[in-house]
Amino acid sequence: MKFFNDLADFSAAEIDELITLARRLDTNPEPRALEGKVLSLLFLSPSLRTLISFQSAMAKLGGSTFVISPEMSIHGLESRSGIVMDGVAAEHVREAVPVIASYGNAIGIRAFAKRESLDDDLADREFRELVSLVETPYINMESAINHPCQSLADWKTMDDLGIPGNGGKFVLSWTWHPRPMPFAVPAATVHMAAMRGMDVTVLRPEGFELPDVIMDKARQAAAMSGGSITETDDRNSAMQDCEVLYVNSWASPHHYGDRRAEEQIKPELHDWCVDEPWFENANCDSRFMHCLPVRRGVTVTDRILDSSRSVVIAEARNRMLVQMALLHQMLSGS
Amino acid sequence: MKFFNDLADFSAAEIDELITLARRLDTNPEPRALEGKVLSLLFLSPSLRTLISFQSAMAKLGGSTFVISPEMSIHGLESRSGIVMDGVAAEHVREAVPVIASYGNAIGIRAFAKRESLDDDLADREFRELVSLVETPYINMESAINHPCQSLADWKTMDDLGIPGNGGKFVLSWTWHPRPMPFAVPAATVHMAAMRGMDVTVLRPEGFELPDVIMDKARQAAAMSGGSITETDDRNSAMQDCEVLYVNSWASPHHYGDRRAEEQIKPELHDWCVDEPWFENANCDSRFMHCLPVRRGVTVTDRILDSSRSVVIAEARNRMLVQMALLHQMLSGS
Amino acid sequence: MKFFNDLADFSAAEIDELITLARRLDTNPEPRALEGKVLSLLFLSPSLRTLISFQSAMAKLGGSTFVISPEMSIHGLESRSGIVMDGVAAEHVREAVPVIASYGNAIGIRAFAKRESLDDDLADREFRELVSLVETPYINMESAINHPCQSLADWKTMDDLGIPGNGGKFVLSWTWHPRPMPFAVPAATVHMAAMRGMDVTVLRPEGFELPDVIMDKARQAAAMSGGSITETDDRNSAMQDCEVLYVNSWASPHHYGDRRAEEQIKPELHDWCVDEPWFENANCDSRFMHCLPVRRGVTVTDRILDSSRSVVIAEARNRMLVQMALLHQMLSGS
Repeated sequence: MKFFNDLADFSAAEIDELITLARRLDTNPEPRALEGKVLSLLFLSPSLRTLISFQSAMAKLGGSTFVISPEMSIHGLESRSGIVMDGVAAEHVREAVPVIASYGNAIGIRAFAKRESLDDDLADREFRELVSLVETPYINMESAINHPCQSLADWKTMDDLGIPGNGGKFVLSWTWHPRPMPFAVPAATVHMAAMRGMDVTVLRPEGFELPDVIMDKARQAAAMSGGSITETDDRNSAMQDCEVLYVNSWASPHHYGDRRAEEQIKPELHDWCVDEPWFENANCDSRFMHCLPVRRGVTVTDRILDSSRSVVIAEARNRMLVQMALLHQMLSGS
Repeated sequence: MKFFNDLADFSAAEIDELITLARRLDTNPEPRALEGKVLSLLFLSPSLRTLISFQSAMAKLGGSTFVISPEMSIHGLESRSGIVMDGVAAEHVREAVPVIASYGNAIGIRAFAKRESLDDDLADREFRELVSLVETPYINMESAINHPCQSLADWKTMDDLGIPGNGGKFVLSWTWHPRPMPFAVPAATVHMAAMRGMDVTVLRPEGFELPDVIMDKARQAAAMSGGSITETDDRNSAMQDCEVLYVNSWASPHHYGDRRAEEQIKPELHDWCVDEPWFENANCDSRFMHCLPVRRGVTVTDRILDSSRSVVIAEARNRMLVQMALLHQMLSGS
Repeated sequence: MKFFNDLADFSAAEIDELITLARRLDTNPEPRALEGKVLSLLFLSPSLRTLISFQSAMAKLGGSTFVISPEMSIHGLESRSGIVMDGVAAEHVREAVPVIASYGNAIGIRAFAKRESLDDDLADREFRELVSLVETPYINMESAINHPCQSLADWKTMDDLGIPGNGGKFVLSWTWHPRPMPFAVPAATVHMAAMRGMDVTVLRPEGFELPDVIMDKARQAAAMSGGSITETDDRNSAMQDCEVLYVNSWASPHHYGDRRAEEQIKPELHDWCVDEPWFENANCDSRFMHCLPVRRGVTVTDRILDSSRSVVIAEARNRMLVQMALLHQMLSGS
């Protein structure tokens, strides 16, 4: 495997193979599989779970990581082209990224949406520019428009729970959040569920439609897998027979990058906080999924998070396991 | 070993076994003992020695660590119950701690006293709440009221120096410090010396008595071990025949959490800075112990720290060695 | 090897042996060579490349590192002697450094010039004081006046490119930089090129002469190796037949530690930014070298950095490789 950027680059059979490998490595440790191998971790955006799940994944396979993070003295990393660097930034990504990559056998890169241009972010422009500077295998650790490691972990979590692919009903719901949030997780999630063959409903208030390019990609995946995609702002119909409620927040595409404009339409939406009544017409053991971090009492109530519906800890642990599988495929024997 | 939280949970024989193992691992390295094993290190309070001594301890046994520290972007970690998280904090400990723990084979946690309630801190309430969220083995890396790794290292340091348990005279002295300091080290230290069978004197100015719950626990340990506990503000009598002077600073329990009130009674106490005259009536090769960091010229003079009395570097190195023993018992073969 | 502080402590044959070992470890990995071995990394000054190249170097040999960096809560580390520590600093280097060193099998230390006294910096006074506190083998990761790991990497880079030692023409040029920069890299570089037997020209504007102690050391090395040292402010003559243009910026020794005074003489020197015309009379495949980080458009133009003249990425990767060789010689079998 030369890169892991998008579940769409893999077949369902290849994903199944990764999940099978993740399970095997969980029960049959291979503490020398990646001895002497190094994964570079370049965080241009902050992280908790992603950082430590990759560190642990490499360590459990006998390999190592090093980290470049925004907390380090690289705040001034310049990325614009043709610039005269007479300001704060002392280093350009055109030097920094190839060097960082050259110290490892593979590199993971995180770069959140810049939110300056919706088109640039939907095209994942910054991430693509960064990986064009890299000669080693690379992993998308969340870009403007994708979060494939999260989606792979979520796929495995549903498999672990026996939630069916074809015929399973999956609701991706927008929830309240005080700030405009990126499209990476909803875009990756709706595509993942569609690719898994599920009947997917995107539930969101008016004005928070997912951009066409995201929906179209999910529809294509559904067409291939036998799943389906619908979109609604009607919670009751959406939640009917739901087996998985996956929640996240995202920005309004109509006010992208304009926090103040979005704030003016958001105050009425505080009731988009998941609580037990949401599940009234759902499948009785319908699950609650979230990629974390989650704001208690804002996105979802304590009684949901603390109930058996919630599988958020399992999702997070699966991050480490599927990343072990990825790294094993990418680096063992290489 | 499922947890290491308090020397009081172990017998003197078990502690002896840990110290013996620490010595063996120092002279007979086992660089593969913990291969593929990962220790999560969760610092809710800052650290230098504890961080790197645990990192090195795991590394020398072939294992790995990852770190969550207050310097990382987790300042806003929420710990209150039933809160609506619409402020800065984006994640609750109820999610963060189980996830962090799930990425490792064991977890070390540091959480200093909150100094809001003396009773809560003496009951180690926050630390107990944190470890209740954890299913793996855990290690107390200093809580509101305990610092068992330091105490185990100090016990070994005294063993290494041939300082006797029963019959050895140990003085724990308060010293000057510009700020109110926590009870963790003095509480752990007075109990450790008592459990080791020593004749322990707590030397402190009036108003800086250690709380009853700390003294009672030490007295119980002394009753079991054949040691003794006394308390005084008379330096001359305390230091008579002293073999070990262990110093630290701690808050006045009468003004707990009220820095300004404590400051009003402290200005006269600048002479509680250890210097050679303190040792006038001590055993001639009486040792000076301190857990570090120490303020030169404030807590103790240069000429003591730079003399052969001082064993502070040996104590610090023993931190790594006893932690290797702990981790070996906790994780090898598991 | 007990320390690596200065190329001058080694013979050309020993350096050749290190470079040969670096090449062997690149092509024939030894992922268990340093198993259970720990390198302490003490950064009193910031770092990106040095940090991660040492982390990766140890990891690829099966060893580990831990890091103390200025981003951590040690900003207040006190280094003055005889001080009463009643301010912010809670720990003195006299305790911190021996403890940090005691947790590893070797220690790397970085401490940039303090720029308070030119004589102190030229004598590398702070670095010498720090390593006097250490009993393990140590490595200079850039001090006030040296950067031997960079020089060793640069030597290997020239060897890799087939650039001859004796008879090769090496130009070390001052370049524009908005701030006064230290002497560590130019001092190490001019000595390295001289020791390699090259004909070295130091090209710099008037007022930016390298201090005598630096030039004298380089001249001694040239006398031993059969190389030569000249100094000029005439770009045309300097660049004639040049095979390697190595650029850096450094402070004016006439205004050392006085940023404002230096700024008054610098505004005219913006044309000391390397561009293609510099190479007009150079050897046709003359190389551009720089230790990074480099300010695009300030120190050198994009078209040089993006051309085949530039070998800056190769230099950076060689940092990791030569450090693997160093660490292998220092720690394997020990």
